[in-house]
Amino acid sequence: MADDPAFVDLGFARVDTDRRQRTGFPEVIFGLGKTPSQIAQIAAVILERESVVLATRVSREQFEAVQPNFPEAVFHERARCLTIEREQLPKRSRSVAVVAAGTSDLPVAEEAAVTLEVFGNSVERIYDAGVAGIHRLLVETDRLRTCAAVIVVAGMEGALPSVVAGLVDKPVIAVPTSVGYGANFGGLAALLGMLNSCGSGVTVVNIDNGFGAAYAAATINRLIG
Amino acid sequence: MADDPAFVDLGFARVDTDRRQRTGFPEVIFGLGKTPSQIAQIAAVILERESVVLATRVSREQFEAVQPNFPEAVFHERARCLTIEREQLPKRSRSVAVVAAGTSDLPVAEEAAVTLEVFGNSVERIYDAGVAGIHRLLVETDRLRTCAAVIVVAGMEGALPSVVAGLVDKPVIAVPTSVGYGANFGGLAALLGMLNSCGSGVTVVNIDNGFGAAYAAATINRLIG
Amino acid sequence: MADDPAFVDLGFARVDTDRRQRTGFPEVIFGLGKTPSQIAQIAAVILERESVVLATRVSREQFEAVQPNFPEAVFHERARCLTIEREQLPKRSRSVAVVAAGTSDLPVAEEAAVTLEVFGNSVERIYDAGVAGIHRLLVETDRLRTCAAVIVVAGMEGALPSVVAGLVDKPVIAVPTSVGYGANFGGLAALLGMLNSCGSGVTVVNIDNGFGAAYAAATINRLIG
Amino acid sequence: MADDPAFVDLGFARVDTDRRQRTGFPEVIFGLGKTPSQIAQIAAVILERESVVLATRVSREQFEAVQPNFPEAVFHERARCLTIEREQLPKRSRSVAVVAAGTSDLPVAEEAAVTLEVFGNSVERIYDAGVAGIHRLLVETDRLRTCAAVIVVAGMEGALPSVVAGLVDKPVIAVPTSVGYGANFGGLAALLGMLNSCGSGVTVVNIDNGFGAAYAAATINRLIG
Amino acid sequence: MADDPAFVDLGFARVDTDRRQRTGFPEVIFGLGKTPSQIAQIAAVILERESVVLATRVSREQFEAVQPNFPEAVFHERARCLTIEREQLPKRSRSVAVVAAGTSDLPVAEEAAVTLEVFGNSVERIYDAGVAGIHRLLVETDRLRTCAAVIVVAGMEGALPSVVAGLVDKPVIAVPTSVGYGANFGGLAALLGMLNSCGSGVTVVNIDNGFGAAYAAATINRLIG
Amino acid sequence: MADDPAFVDLGFARVDTDRRQRTGFPEVIFGLGKTPSQIAQIAAVILERESVVLATRVSREQFEAVQPNFPEAVFHERARCLTIEREQLPKRSRSVAVVAAGTSDLPVAEEAAVTLEVFGNSVERIYDAGVAGIHRLLVETDRLRTCAAVIVVAGMEGALPSVVAGLVDKPVIAVPTSVGYGANFGGLAALLGMLNSCGSGVTVVNIDNGFGAAYAAATINRLIG
Amino acid sequence: MADDPAFVDLGFARVDTDRRQRTGFPEVIFGLGKTPSQIAQIAAVILERESVVLATRVSREQFEAVQPNFPEAVFHERARCLTIEREQLPKRSRSVAVVAAGTSDLPVAEEAAVTLEVFGNSVERIYDAGVAGIHRLLVETDRLRTCAAVIVVAGMEGALPSVVAGLVDKPVIAVPTSVGYGANFGGLAALLGMLNSCGSGVTVVNIDNGFGAAYAAATINRLIG
Amino acid sequence: MADDPAFVDLGFARVDTDRRQRTGFPEVIFGLGKTPSQIAQIAAVILERESVVLATRVSREQFEAVQPNFPEAVFHERARCLTIEREQLPKRSRSVAVVAAGTSDLPVAEEAAVTLEVFGNSVERIYDAGVAGIHRLLVETDRLRTCAAVIVVAGMEGALPSVVAGLVDKPVIAVPTSVGYGANFGGLAALLGMLNSCGSGVTVVNIDNGFGAAYAAATINRLIG
Repeated sequence: MADDPAFVDLGFARVDTDRRQRTGFPEVIFGLGKTPSQIAQIAAVILERESVVLATRVSREQFEAVQPNFPEAVFHERARCLTIEREQLPKRSRSVAVVAAGTSDLPVAEEAAVTLEVFGNSVERIYDAGVAGIHRLLVETDRLRTCAAVIVVAGMEGALPSVVAGLVDKPVIAVPTSVGYGANFGGLAALLGMLNSCGSGVTVVNIDNGFGAAYAAATINRLIG
Repeated sequence: MADDPAFVDLGFARVDTDRRQRTGFPEVIFGLGKTPSQIAQIAAVILERESVVLATRVSREQFEAVQPNFPEAVFHERARCLTIEREQLPKRSRSVAVVAAGTSDLPVAEEAAVTLEVFGNSVERIYDAGVAGIHRLLVETDRLRTCAAVIVVAGMEGALPSVVAGLVDKPVIAVPTSVGYGANFGGLAALLGMLNSCGSGVTVVNIDNGFGAAYAAATINRLIG
Repeated sequence: MADDPAFVDLGFARVDTDRRQRTGFPEVIFGLGKTPSQIAQIAAVILERESVVLATRVSREQFEAVQPNFPEAVFHERARCLTIEREQLPKRSRSVAVVAAGTSDLPVAEEAAVTLEVFGNSVERIYDAGVAGIHRLLVETDRLRTCAAVIVVAGMEGALPSVVAGLVDKPVIAVPTSVGYGANFGGLAALLGMLNSCGSGVTVVNIDNGFGAAYAAATINRLIG
Repeated sequence: MADDPAFVDLGFARVDTDRRQRTGFPEVIFGLGKTPSQIAQIAAVILERESVVLATRVSREQFEAVQPNFPEAVFHERARCLTIEREQLPKRSRSVAVVAAGTSDLPVAEEAAVTLEVFGNSVERIYDAGVAGIHRLLVETDRLRTCAAVIVVAGMEGALPSVVAGLVDKPVIAVPTSVGYGANFGGLAALLGMLNSCGSGVTVVNIDNGFGAAYAAATINRLIG
Repeated sequence: MADDPAFVDLGFARVDTDRRQRTGFPEVIFGLGKTPSQIAQIAAVILERESVVLATRVSREQFEAVQPNFPEAVFHERARCLTIEREQLPKRSRSVAVVAAGTSDLPVAEEAAVTLEVFGNSVERIYDAGVAGIHRLLVETDRLRTCAAVIVVAGMEGALPSVVAGLVDKPVIAVPTSVGYGANFGGLAALLGMLNSCGSGVTVVNIDNGFGAAYAAATINRLIG
Repeated sequence: MADDPAFVDLGFARVDTDRRQRTGFPEVIFGLGKTPSQIAQIAAVILERESVVLATRVSREQFEAVQPNFPEAVFHERARCLTIEREQLPKRSRSVAVVAAGTSDLPVAEEAAVTLEVFGNSVERIYDAGVAGIHRLLVETDRLRTCAAVIVVAGMEGALPSVVAGLVDKPVIAVPTSVGYGANFGGLAALLGMLNSCGSGVTVVNIDNGFGAAYAAATINRLIG
Repeated sequence: MADDPAFVDLGFARVDTDRRQRTGFPEVIFGLGKTPSQIAQIAAVILERESVVLATRVSREQFEAVQPNFPEAVFHERARCLTIEREQLPKRSRSVAVVAAGTSDLPVAEEAAVTLEVFGNSVERIYDAGVAGIHRLLVETDRLRTCAAVIVVAGMEGALPSVVAGLVDKPVIAVPTSVGYGANFGGLAALLGMLNSCGSGVTVVNIDNGFGAAYAAATINRLIG
Repeated sequence: MADDPAFVDLGFARVDTDRRQRTGFPEVIFGLGKTPSQIAQIAAVILERESVVLATRVSREQFEAVQPNFPEAVFHERARCLTIEREQLPKRSRSVAVVAAGTSDLPVAEEAAVTLEVFGNSVERIYDAGVAGIHRLLVETDRLRTCAAVIVVAGMEGALPSVVAGLVDKPVIAVPTSVGYGANFGGLAALLGMLNSCGSGVTVVNIDNGFGAAYAAATINRLIG
């Protein structure tokens, strides 16, 4: 195995111990497809250097197998996230908004919200504000304008980010979800809709990638100080 | 060649002379890929029984080659349509609205508008009212509500029909356009967006098919009387 | 939570209590992915203002968990719909036809039929009338012509709406279904077939979206009075 | 270069001189992308052993450059085919029908018809008999039933083969065409429609491949004797 | 319900009792998605007029629930077919070959073989003769040449029909299968390969549609007498 | 035409005069598909309220037709942009980096750079630093870390943003380009690559959308002050 | 059944006993979709002529049913492979490297590694060296350069082969994996990324096809001697 | 501009002067989309350190504009390549075969052949040996077996590499071409066919990427010495 101060080689994983120095946040564990033992070993390596661990796409079964090793671990059911916070990261002065178009989008929205909170951001949650009843969004315009960035989570046709981008002067990060059926094609419709948004400056992450949107928003919020 | 009172066989085309009796409107000529001579021959057969001819997807070159045969023919530049109206079809009591999201969508919107007018409908045109500046649409809510049906033409992410469907209690027919680039994939993004609309009851026609939307709206408007 | 007379914020859902005033019909619950408790809470909010509740894509399990709260609730097995009708909506003078190409298309056809009935429309059901034995459809031509609109449900190649549109002078709304296999690609073949229909004025909804087609047809039928 | 009695190696092409012995018909030249000189050289090799040459996808420019070498060459404008018939192939006792849905499908239909004729088959041409006016097809039922096989050429939704297959007891070979626009995706809609045909036993060739359908039909017709 | 001598309306199905008169073979039951009761009712209607019933895509569970009604019913495990033969259909003089590229393609190949046999054709089975060991096919060339038609079943890259078409002078019908993984995309690779075959006159049916290929081959074989 | 203080209705366009108040930057003209006269009219409306006009996707021909109306207009050849700056927008304290993977990506990179400069940002250009010679990027690590945000423009496999995201603690906005051929499918390969980036927090805009990435980066940079 | 010295016809399979003479390695069994009995029969035929059997895509259940016939059979859990080595194949002088981007790619990487080892190659395993922490790869540059070929296994955006190809002067064979979600589309993103690699000379195999990459690398390594 | 001994920064390009040391061959110029001046500048930088320059995808116009700077430059018309060879690279002891399925595939085959020759490899050209006349390939089996590697170029269904892989014990590199029409989808059919090849160990490059295949084969041939 290679000898390098900037990662620890567990054989099945090379844990990037230098990540926070380079990119601002410690490595995050993507739980899908990992065994509880693998999650626990990676978490242990991270906790040697960091006060906070975040694992996403974690099932309750995975959590329960990992938890005995880390009694302080918390499971966020709706968000499917595991967090360990031995010491909280510094709190940012500005909030980040998480807007969701429909009730079925909440798991993705909560993955974003939990990620933001672990990384030191307050979150404004605005859920089920889809464009078919646009007044449910418009009443929130002032609240949106106070935030450092807005994450917009939507499935189906993914129209919501375009409308939000026309209302605020902050970065808008769009998260397409796989919510829908038929010609939705697993989120493709929402993804293409957001990429073609007529709202200037909307940027997009992968389908259902609430974590990625939150990471980007946290990076933006940290810039302000 | 077959002998049937319900069509005239020109060899290259079997003109459906029974069409209006069955479906309410005379046969319409799809100009794309037809020679001027073919268009002229079909038009002549139709005019033996009908007072009105509509040809869509007609270029100026095709029009100019056809026009000597029919001095009363009119060319609608933006709509790329040729019309011959020896006698106007009966005028409907209600209007149909044609809403377009952006300036580049106008050729498709005008194809719909010209079709509607030839078939006896007044048209309310509301152009460049896309969702990135939603106030440009909201000021028209009352005008939309007076119409028998609303055609919504949009490219890019195709979000406009969802918003319109949340504002009116009339049938909303969505026309995706091929306006856009990159991950628009020739109108696919708008098409999928409209098919997945969270606005209840939105129905959709083919990409750039302004004629089809207008035909459906005219059929609806004729129901009212 | 935002304070607005036009919706009720349940946290996970902003129930659009103003929907019928704006769009003609009360909000409908999309059952897929909602917990029985969420369905029950939304239904309760709707019933404060409306006499009728419709929930689509509801499983028998969801229904049985919700029913104790609403003893008058009815489950439509084939249509996978839950309805509560404390008072029937006004009955329309004209019927709507629901034509299905094959036996496997019945769940989608029934979702359309139940929706139509809840919204006050009589339904003419014509099932298994696909184009491979076209005489099974042609004998129904007169019955189709008496209806205000025709919904055509078909999987596989989705050819039926084109034939129907050539027979009637009423709006034809096509519903592609995911029935088929192989190069059907989950309904894509039928969807593309219908969007490219050579029958003028056919409009299309999402794959398996019987509800959407019925909503559009009900909106059309209401126009007549 | 390899030495083999069963082909002639021209460097850029290995002309398969054994083709008729193995598969029943001499090699056919696919003109697209070949220079006139290449076409002429291949034709010369074929004519050393065969009395008939067929080249498909040939432009008028290619034809005019090739013709000086073969004064008996004939150009079929609509079919985009070049034929040289020094002696006609034996005539089959049964005809093959070529049905086309619309006027724009004629180039593909004619490619099929010319191929059939060169290979010794009489052709029944039935053009512009699409399903939107189904009576234009039904009047031809008896004529269709006399043929050994039926080729059905259609663009847009490609519904015609399903209807034809329900009317006759002969092999039906479907040719999707690239005629259409928008969600037609260059013939994909017609192709998928035909592959998913509810008409039993419909077989399909590539988009715009009139030649291939004719080759298959000629092989079938030759079986009868 | 409509009254027509050419079909029997069971509500959920309009059994096409006129099918054999028009198309040469009685209606076949597609078992997928039908209840055992539906299969039994349709079979009973068919048996009033025909001596043979074929149902495809039937599971062992469906068969066992249907069998008590029809003690003479036979289940073909590998082919997933149910047959009832009260009297055999007339035997054709020529055989049809069924060639399969690999062991995993056998269920589709057997669906074709059983269909052929029920419809009165002898079958030459040549299994696991894929192009990676082309000698396994070449030794069968003479046997292939005696058949009236050749069905070629292949998954993965679907190359086998092109090679077969270069060896025989009979119709070649290609059946792509969903066998494979990754960029096979559920049989799309094999389907596209076969549609683009450089072997002249190859025709193609839907992915995994052994029945359709057999139906077409039986129609061809019946032409010979 | 509607009367509203927040837009000017030119018939073909509703110029959103309220845009800067809501979203921070004045409306930008998308030149593709607009006539020079339309561009000029929209620019004139904008200049009544703003000191700066930016039009993207402008050809030299369009520019030359527009320029007589606005002698101060500047054409940016490589970026295909027209700018009019009567007064410069306030300069931001931090730069934005624009990294391009290859020489062919420069038009998109320059569209981003010109947009950034018009909106008051200094730009660090790092061009032709693709991953096949990763040392060409690594030497720029320190320069990248001083910027407020990094825009990464890449075609082909779109791998560059993942590597950049692993080196810096700033927002990374990825722009896929249509540079490539074959299985690139017009930029789809790069787009999918970027959406699936293993680099945390990478956000993505439409293919070739240099403007959109710059708009997002400018919004971020304005947050810092 | 055909009689040929170069294969054994088991009815369901024609075992290619001539394979090693022609292509250098004995036939390999693809376990997916085969019954244990089929695997055992094929293995027995192979072992009559060869000292080594490899079966890929084998589940533990399949292994346990096969093992009683071959007590020396070994199951490789992570690689999902069964091997029987009665005598080892000759050992090559050079190693082959297998590099994997992430922990979830290990099953595919191990399928490659086990295949290489059975075919006589030593393997250098470098796992979890993805581009988001590029230093984890760069420290291995010297080790990579000693190998005869490098297999690079990666899911998500599939960027790793491009970087590796820029570091070594050996053949690089890329294996996309289906690891990922959303717009990964089952490995399509990684596949397209690798096909469009800017690293010269990268060749690609099917998604998850660790075996195929190893077979190619073993063929290369055998060339050296 | 960055200062690094391993590349030269021309502003529009960072020429990788260290490429041969790392990867074995000097940087190659991809001509598509570059101006003649850019090609000339990059070539001049390369020639300061290398004796050979290869530029691919070069038009005759580009060549003629570049040639005055480099009188020894040669244009390869069919291959669309420019080469400058001041001193030939060392000649390898073994040849590489380039097999092409059809005449239309020659430009891609020649791009591969010219690349191989510039990099010091002798080439065995076998053109128009597609599977529809498999004897045209089989006669070349012995010649193929003497080569170090085989490049197989094919459009349409891309079946040829599978057959070749079953005949030789050398690495087979498959190049799909965009030759074809309709459901070929610009080479997608051939690409998918090759990725799903049943021939073990076939590796694949991008559509029309003759250069890439040759680069890989040259790397393999250099391994032998």
